[in-house]
Amino acid sequence: MIKALPVKRYLALSGGVGGAKLALGLSKILDPEQLTIVANTGDDFEHLGLSISPDLDTVMYTLAEINNKELGWGLAGESWDTMDALARLGGETWFRLGDRDLATHLQRSTLLASGVNLSGVTQSLCQQLGIIHPIIPMSDDPVRTCVKTDKGDLAFQQYFVREQCTPEVEGFYFDGIESAKPQPQMMDLLAGDELAAIIICPSNPFVSVDPILGLANVKDAMRNNSAPVIAISPIVAGMAIKGPAAKMMSELGIPATAAEVARFYGNLIDGFVLDESDYGLKSEIEQCGIHVHCTNTIMKTLDDRIDLAKDVLSFIDSIDDKTNKKKKENL
Amino acid sequence: MIKALPVKRYLALSGGVGGAKLALGLSKILDPEQLTIVANTGDDFEHLGLSISPDLDTVMYTLAEINNKELGWGLAGESWDTMDALARLGGETWFRLGDRDLATHLQRSTLLASGVNLSGVTQSLCQQLGIIHPIIPMSDDPVRTCVKTDKGDLAFQQYFVREQCTPEVEGFYFDGIESAKPQPQMMDLLAGDELAAIIICPSNPFVSVDPILGLANVKDAMRNNSAPVIAISPIVAGMAIKGPAAKMMSELGIPATAAEVARFYGNLIDGFVLDESDYGLKSEIEQCGIHVHCTNTIMKTLDDRIDLAKDVLSFIDSIDDKTNKKKKENL
Repeated sequence: MIKALPVKRYLALSGGVGGAKLALGLSKILDPEQLTIVANTGDDFEHLGLSISPDLDTVMYTLAEINNKELGWGLAGESWDTMDALARLGGETWFRLGDRDLATHLQRSTLLASGVNLSGVTQSLCQQLGIIHPIIPMSDDPVRTCVKTDKGDLAFQQYFVREQCTPEVEGFYFDGIESAKPQPQMMDLLAGDELAAIIICPSNPFVSVDPILGLANVKDAMRNNSAPVIAISPIVAGMAIKGPAAKMMSELGIPATAAEVARFYGNLIDGFVLDESDYGLKSEIEQCGIHVHCTNTIMKTLDDRIDLAKDVLSFIDSIDDKTNKKKKENL
Repeated sequence: MIKALPVKRYLALSGGVGGAKLALGLSKILDPEQLTIVANTGDDFEHLGLSISPDLDTVMYTLAEINNKELGWGLAGESWDTMDALARLGGETWFRLGDRDLATHLQRSTLLASGVNLSGVTQSLCQQLGIIHPIIPMSDDPVRTCVKTDKGDLAFQQYFVREQCTPEVEGFYFDGIESAKPQPQMMDLLAGDELAAIIICPSNPFVSVDPILGLANVKDAMRNNSAPVIAISPIVAGMAIKGPAAKMMSELGIPATAAEVARFYGNLIDGFVLDESDYGLKSEIEQCGIHVHCTNTIMKTLDDRIDLAKDVLSFIDSIDDKTNKKKKENL
């Protein structure tokens, strides 16, 4: 009698653009039952009376392959008639909402107001957009990333979009994180024994990943799960592929290197994927007891995304073969 | 020493399309300090999380001359990208909100949420649109017109837009009208002695004008003011120029005639403007003690709007000359 091999399941934690690119790559090589994508909601905010979830939307639009590749946010082929009219009315237009993108926020706001939680809203939106891989918010409760800067504390989108990341960063805090309940599907996967790995996508460690990790019991559940935790560096050759990660590191007095990203995750991770241009940092990271894999992590094309996804899965298999996930050693 | 003649001021009560056309005509021949337009807010509603004021917007867009003349609502040159995207997301699209029109509702909702009242919001929107004549909502408090029908009670926009006026009307009620405070500027004008006339625009008497008249003290203030009250018939030759007024009258068992509109307003009005095609009804209305003026009331062009406005003002002057406003007789 042949016993079916258990399905290898993966949990991917993602912020916006970079994370979404790898999530798309993973979705191209994994069945829907094998991949669950958790998106950061720390950068969610309420604007013009609408509930906006920028990272969730970026992941959703990217997986539906309707994302705007030029802008790095929003929808492809977008028009801006509402924003132009809003400008004429003296409204706030610093956060650019395209006409089609607005429909997402209107529908989310309407469903939330009707009592559907953010997970349910996301499921409905994904279904309508034909996305077959589950995308879940990190929590159904509001968590709001705040950036401490030399210009005072700023809500994340105010820092990121309105102020275009110019204020000097002094730290971060996540309003509501103590009371926010981590999303139950995510916690079920972390508590179970079906995961082959937990993948921390190449997203900003401070404002995209840390809000997820900071939710109650998430880190403990990750450590207690026997599956390895793998992070892919968002910093390549001392620069962030996109976004303010490198600038933030400098301002926080941390060298803007991939090695520091690995150190930031510390003993939470078992493996780290480094861009080939940062090969020189490999042994430094390995000295922290972290497996390191060097490859091209710059995802310009869909093929790049798929190649990196395959590379990450092979790396996970190689760690698994060595069966030396730290917590196993510790047990 | 020459004493300046007092400014003749007019208060116009308006619903949507028909009323807005006459309001535009009046605005072309009266200075801003001479004309105040009060718009019905009984058909306001909350939809997709937005605060929508259809009659206010129609008056506003008409006075800014940016209204959509083909549709009879919304903005000229409108696009529908948000609605199309919302349809894709499975959202509610029965109430068509154009991309540009959406900006008005986003801005209104944002300002209301920030604590500005509807009068303040309307003032801000009008200013941005370059409207120089004051447009005010009938109240800053919510009043919601409900239509009693053979299919049950329907919120006005559900009856009017979603059900396209097909259910048979049995009556109306105005949720919140007992506690809603009539707009203070309107009440100040009605309480003062500067008005030359109160003009009830050619709007639906049941759902556009009656909510205004039903606000606390409005009818009394109109009766106590020495200025004549003039109504222009929205019913011409047994049909409504636009909207369900004639259908409603039939379903309520009232003959759909201009004479019945005059009877509906009864002793509240001193004068009635009738379309020339309804000349045969003149004496019947005059027998109710109402001055009647027959003229072309069908406003197809801007010139028609201006002509009717001039006609109405001349008619008011003629009533004033006779100094036989009913309440004066009664005093």
